[in-house]
Amino acid sequence: MAEASLTVSSKNYSSWSLRGFLLCRMAGLDFAEKIAPIDDPATRAELLLLSPSFLVPCLEHGKVKVWDTLAIAEYLNEIKPEAGLLPSDPVARAHCRAVCGEMHSGFANLRSALPMNLKVRHEGFKVWAGAQADIERVTAIWRECLQRYGGPYLFGKKPTMADAMYAPVCSRFATYDVKLDAASAGYRDLMLKFPAMLEWTLAAKSEPEEVEELDVEF
Amino acid sequence: MAEASLTVSSKNYSSWSLRGFLLCRMAGLDFAEKIAPIDDPATRAELLLLSPSFLVPCLEHGKVKVWDTLAIAEYLNEIKPEAGLLPSDPVARAHCRAVCGEMHSGFANLRSALPMNLKVRHEGFKVWAGAQADIERVTAIWRECLQRYGGPYLFGKKPTMADAMYAPVCSRFATYDVKLDAASAGYRDLMLKFPAMLEWTLAAKSEPEEVEELDVEF
Repeated sequence: MAEASLTVSSKNYSSWSLRGFLLCRMAGLDFAEKIAPIDDPATRAELLLLSPSFLVPCLEHGKVKVWDTLAIAEYLNEIKPEAGLLPSDPVARAHCRAVCGEMHSGFANLRSALPMNLKVRHEGFKVWAGAQADIERVTAIWRECLQRYGGPYLFGKKPTMADAMYAPVCSRFATYDVKLDAASAGYRDLMLKFPAMLEWTLAAKSEPEEVEELDVEF
Repeated sequence: MAEASLTVSSKNYSSWSLRGFLLCRMAGLDFAEKIAPIDDPATRAELLLLSPSFLVPCLEHGKVKVWDTLAIAEYLNEIKPEAGLLPSDPVARAHCRAVCGEMHSGFANLRSALPMNLKVRHEGFKVWAGAQADIERVTAIWRECLQRYGGPYLFGKKPTMADAMYAPVCSRFATYDVKLDAASAGYRDLMLKFPAMLEWTLAAKSEPEEVEELDVEF
């Protein structure tokens, strides 16, 4: 029996589920996946981008139940410090948490205009101005981190929680054919090939399309 | 000269600035306030509820610059562990981070329908259904915490980062005359009388109304 369980929803559409999954894999946690039922109102609301759900991702580990992605990241960092989910340098660590927090509470235009969809590719997709401003901010964050810490991950040689937080954005940039500067494109490609990301993407591609019943405007 | 600086915007309207201020006071940090110019586009966007700003609140402390509220909370907890911004019990700590995270990324309807405004009172304000669902979730969180940890604060006898995160909601419940159960009303009243909250509220009430130029639909 696994040490912990992680509840997720759609692998193709739920970017928060993906973040939780990547964090657990990065931490080296022994966990079993549970799938939240698609007909649950909270799951639907999350998939329809109406509200963050407190059902997914949800990590259960002994008496601990954590249902927020950043809280899961901090919890994993506490129980698996050797995984280095946060940089060891205090200044870099504060910076890492700030960019994670910005992803957690922001980029609403990017989320709604470019929802995660790992199954498809939209060549020449037209990005509206509001989402473009978010894209510019995301890539400014990436460029600053890559330059300051030397890459290939945002905070240096090893992946941290920041890479898990921005990984769904990498997939969106690929899905919607978003034009990027060379440094940002390189980082996007690196994350798309990240082993746990490939594992999730493969599962997403074979996911049944019952989610279409939600009538989401993708 | 103060140990650190905290950049905030409007004391009357900026709920994120209030959270950052409360966290610094709870931590016992020696800090000076800086006011972000109201005509800055990022400040405007934050006040107009268009986007979380990466300008406010912003804590600068030596080489550390942190511009996200949760990242500020975690940073303060690292440098001032004796303040107890997080519960010492690991299960309670994970729970505390989860409810902080939920406030950080959620409750969009509550934010937009009941924006913070410390100067006014709207008796008999009609709350629309979407915001009411958020109110019910917030008070469910409060009741569970108060019952589980025994109050008077969300995680027991001492204030934690969760109280700072939910404090602006207490002010909104007062401003818009939101009907609450007895336990939630008691908690709201406690937080409205919290010393650092009173200090901020007093300053908000004497703040010039230049923010009205923003033409915000309050």
